[in-house]
Amino acid sequence: MKLNALSERWDAEVYIKCEQFQPIGAFKIRGASNFALQLPEGSKALVTHSSGNHAQAVAYMGQRLGIPAHVVMPSNSNKKKIQNAKKWGATVHLCEPTFESRVSAAAALAEEFNAVIIPPFDHEWIVEGQATCAMEILYDLPEVDIIAAPLGGGGLLAGTTLAAHHFSSKAKVIGAEPANAADGYEGLEKGERITSFTPNTVADGLRTTVGEVPFEVLKDHEVEVLLAEEEDILPWMKLIWDYSKTLIEPSCAVPFAAMDRHKERWKGKQIAIIVTGGNVDIDQLF
Amino acid sequence: MKLNALSERWDAEVYIKCEQFQPIGAFKIRGASNFALQLPEGSKALVTHSSGNHAQAVAYMGQRLGIPAHVVMPSNSNKKKIQNAKKWGATVHLCEPTFESRVSAAAALAEEFNAVIIPPFDHEWIVEGQATCAMEILYDLPEVDIIAAPLGGGGLLAGTTLAAHHFSSKAKVIGAEPANAADGYEGLEKGERITSFTPNTVADGLRTTVGEVPFEVLKDHEVEVLLAEEEDILPWMKLIWDYSKTLIEPSCAVPFAAMDRHKERWKGKQIAIIVTGGNVDIDQLF
Repeated sequence: MKLNALSERWDAEVYIKCEQFQPIGAFKIRGASNFALQLPEGSKALVTHSSGNHAQAVAYMGQRLGIPAHVVMPSNSNKKKIQNAKKWGATVHLCEPTFESRVSAAAALAEEFNAVIIPPFDHEWIVEGQATCAMEILYDLPEVDIIAAPLGGGGLLAGTTLAAHHFSSKAKVIGAEPANAADGYEGLEKGERITSFTPNTVADGLRTTVGEVPFEVLKDHEVEVLLAEEEDILPWMKLIWDYSKTLIEPSCAVPFAAMDRHKERWKGKQIAIIVTGGNVDIDQLF
Repeated sequence: MKLNALSERWDAEVYIKCEQFQPIGAFKIRGASNFALQLPEGSKALVTHSSGNHAQAVAYMGQRLGIPAHVVMPSNSNKKKIQNAKKWGATVHLCEPTFESRVSAAAALAEEFNAVIIPPFDHEWIVEGQATCAMEILYDLPEVDIIAAPLGGGGLLAGTTLAAHHFSSKAKVIGAEPANAADGYEGLEKGERITSFTPNTVADGLRTTVGEVPFEVLKDHEVEVLLAEEEDILPWMKLIWDYSKTLIEPSCAVPFAAMDRHKERWKGKQIAIIVTGGNVDIDQLF
């Protein structure tokens, strides 16, 4: 979808890729479906842990494939995302909101059902699935100059990087992180992945460190990461609501907020920005 | 756009027609452009009065046609709509929030510029323009059983009625009004247009009486009008935000809220509901 108002503001041709219109309201279905479809026949369960959209993606795939889905979610997850995972028929196991308790709860379920855990981002099947998003952008806009996406765990940004590398001779990929969750930016600066940090951002989908598999892709391809100031994120979310008349999550506002601080760089370019999802809990947000 | 969640809820096939994606964020551009294009060559100004989307439509057409637009808006109009009219290059004349002061201010401008006032709904050119919306629905869904739209001034609902009559052998048209602004419903019951009432509804686009031209069309075609309870309107707005991941105005929620109270009637039907606009002032609403 072309955004005329943003195109004027940046003197560029700016499009969004609307992943909020996916059946689960987010891009995560791409990686989760690719992973689930590689599982051996006769798998007894789909198991994962996630604070949000990945849980919904696995729940949805469980329903589509007729395999029971078990998702571990931290008890402080967005209520809408918990409801939705249940709507798609998953059994939701709430746990303490720490990474350790998520991992151990999922491991116990995986053992119980003799299942593998479907990781949210740190696996090549996930990266491959997420790559289909930029592949589709390049079908529609073969001359696109820039493809931008948020950077959380890195599955989407790594997939975007690989798709741009394979299907375009010129598309440059740009990642965007909240300045208050800049582990990817700092890790890429140092050339070494940061594995522990304390994110403090409203962009709930990006409160995670970049995974090993994605990090290597981003490092190899020297992907540039721009930072969004925390105070710009919600105003940009509302601005994109207005510009696009679509709902986007706070995390999706991060590329817009980050890129707007460098708008002189986008002049005359054709730009596609991946809007990763629209699962907003309106009542909680306001 | 098909709404899967609503289709399940009503056991029907429910689509929305997304007028929030029009350049001015609302369907009003259809009637305003049809009217403006009928004006004699050499017209010096486009003049109108409107509390909202029609003002933006006239402003936009002024910019497109290179004719100065003058729009009278009540001082209590939605701020976003005032801003947008200015953005499209119109001169905005704020007036007291009464119908009389709108009319007299617009009449003075029309005299000053020797222009006709472009009415928001009560004119056959406006009705014809709005009719293109249902015509497009019938291109996409030739077998549609029901086309529903909100009823405010009646331009859209009358146009929808004429399009369904001419381009479909079976589509039934349903209008929806807030129970707190039910002049159309009551007028059609009595067979006589109601010209004075005090609306008290959050659906700001529907706080107006049905015009003469639209009323005759609705009466002749025996259009059914359903009522939405006031307390259902904002919850349904948020529900449709969630179901569709698009922004809709409070007025657009009225058909959903009204129809949900009769959901047994929609079972097995193919239904298209016109979402009239998405110009929501987020900060004002919450």
